[in-house]
Amino acid sequence: MTADRSIQDIPRPADIETAAERIRPFARRTPVFTCTAINVITGATLFFKCENFQKVGAFKFRGAANAVFKLSDKQAAKGVATHSSGNHAAALSLAARLRGIPAYIVMPENAPEIKKRAVAGYGAQITFCEPTLAAREEALKKVVKQTGAVFIHPYNHPAIIAGQGTATLELISQTDELDYLLAPVGGGGLLSGTSLAAAAFSPRTQVFGAEPEEADDAYRSLQAGRIIPSENPRTIADGLLTSLGPLTFEILRRHVRRILRVSEADILRAMRLIWERMKIIVEPSAAVPLGALLGGDFDFRSKRIGVILSGGNVDLDRLPWQKS
Amino acid sequence: MTADRSIQDIPRPADIETAAERIRPFARRTPVFTCTAINVITGATLFFKCENFQKVGAFKFRGAANAVFKLSDKQAAKGVATHSSGNHAAALSLAARLRGIPAYIVMPENAPEIKKRAVAGYGAQITFCEPTLAAREEALKKVVKQTGAVFIHPYNHPAIIAGQGTATLELISQTDELDYLLAPVGGGGLLSGTSLAAAAFSPRTQVFGAEPEEADDAYRSLQAGRIIPSENPRTIADGLLTSLGPLTFEILRRHVRRILRVSEADILRAMRLIWERMKIIVEPSAAVPLGALLGGDFDFRSKRIGVILSGGNVDLDRLPWQKS
Repeated sequence: MTADRSIQDIPRPADIETAAERIRPFARRTPVFTCTAINVITGATLFFKCENFQKVGAFKFRGAANAVFKLSDKQAAKGVATHSSGNHAAALSLAARLRGIPAYIVMPENAPEIKKRAVAGYGAQITFCEPTLAAREEALKKVVKQTGAVFIHPYNHPAIIAGQGTATLELISQTDELDYLLAPVGGGGLLSGTSLAAAAFSPRTQVFGAEPEEADDAYRSLQAGRIIPSENPRTIADGLLTSLGPLTFEILRRHVRRILRVSEADILRAMRLIWERMKIIVEPSAAVPLGALLGGDFDFRSKRIGVILSGGNVDLDRLPWQKS
Repeated sequence: MTADRSIQDIPRPADIETAAERIRPFARRTPVFTCTAINVITGATLFFKCENFQKVGAFKFRGAANAVFKLSDKQAAKGVATHSSGNHAAALSLAARLRGIPAYIVMPENAPEIKKRAVAGYGAQITFCEPTLAAREEALKKVVKQTGAVFIHPYNHPAIIAGQGTATLELISQTDELDYLLAPVGGGGLLSGTSLAAAAFSPRTQVFGAEPEEADDAYRSLQAGRIIPSENPRTIADGLLTSLGPLTFEILRRHVRRILRVSEADILRAMRLIWERMKIIVEPSAAVPLGALLGGDFDFRSKRIGVILSGGNVDLDRLPWQKS
């Protein structure tokens, strides 16, 4: 039943193209960077899609803007709601503000101050809850019931996935044909959009997911043929702690060639390499695909490889290479 | 006498255009970034010329490449030499390697390891000296005598200045007309090139220098009408410790509207703002012009302002906002 419903929900190529049109007035067309030094180190030719320069500092704005502006006026009137302490919360809040509707965000009370401030800064109304899955879902249910807001899931949602796919649609238009395309995978929204867009608009490009070894639920789920959630994952890639949903699982199963698992050391090394050599700020999650290339589990040499740099939101007072 | 010689040495507009042609195969055409959040904070419309993305991570490569490739084969045969522990040393080393000639760099023995490694990594031969001006000049004289290499001064040199001016030539072609243009000033090479290029190719644009209060020799020199060197300057903007030379003094005197002095707190605030909002890595020196806008000594509001982000070389283990 779930699988059947999920299949109907899989965005079609036209949904990604429509999403690109829809978000064009609001989202940034981010640049593609290359880096000679990193090409030399990896032996490949890399094209970095810089979603760290996207609004709110992450690709998440694409999906959120698509979901918010896709609503009818009647649907949108009472606002949107979600649970997230991360980039999706900020993205949904900004998209809602741009549409002039309220955003209700459920956030664990122990979320970092910097994230609370960011979301509040975009004008969202925050409801704090205990840091458990049960408390979060209950709080969200209550908020939705009280306000009548539309729940926009962070990743297991067709409009979110179609929106995330627009980064790849752009990347394809900004480069010649790529052999491979790599994106990080947490809940799978970005990788779903990436793989659908590649399958539709650059069918000879093979898509890989990159995942921390310490939060490898997508790897294990695709191996097992069913969703196996992560349990208490611990990784510096704090954007990739969530587990796949039924819709993203189904899309990844169909369109992703393989999930590459990356050690914490390789994530850190990749992040530092991007900062030092490219002079841009990426968050640890965004460095996971380059970490996979450095890890060397797979022979990528002399290939043309697209890499989605998913975001750049990092606490500058607590960088992961600092002893604290 | 010095002044007379200096006047003859001032690069002409055609020298900047020739420099742009000469370095085109080697240097990067860096992008111009805008940032809504920083526009809101300053009340101006800012166009950041991202020389932190330049080869070796700083504008210095433009001047060095111009100076190295301008030499005749005979002049170049014995290599180039300079004294610098910073970006000019790395830039000259890379330019020399690209031309296939030796580079000899005189560096104080207490220079940071990271800078020694960078210069050595470009294949230069390093001579260490005691960290005094006298020791440095003596060591350089000795190196030049032994090797026959051509001394390329870091800033008081026409080809260096013409090369640095190419950043502004590009910026002018990448934006509509600017009201103001700001660049940091240390030895004055960048600001000289910037002001010459603006005077020639965008004459309605007024050029300002931005300088740390703690190393304000350019401000004092232009006030006094003669060069007054900094004595033991202490600022986090470690690229701006040097004092003007006769040639850069003469150019600044003619073409720069005013030198703005910036407090350490405003430099730090500007640097952090660029990192957080633009997601790019700049060194403290590069943040000085934005610091001047934040300082508010001058009314820049609703103006279109170009800002040269001079470089991005920073020790990621010792960021200036960290207590150490």
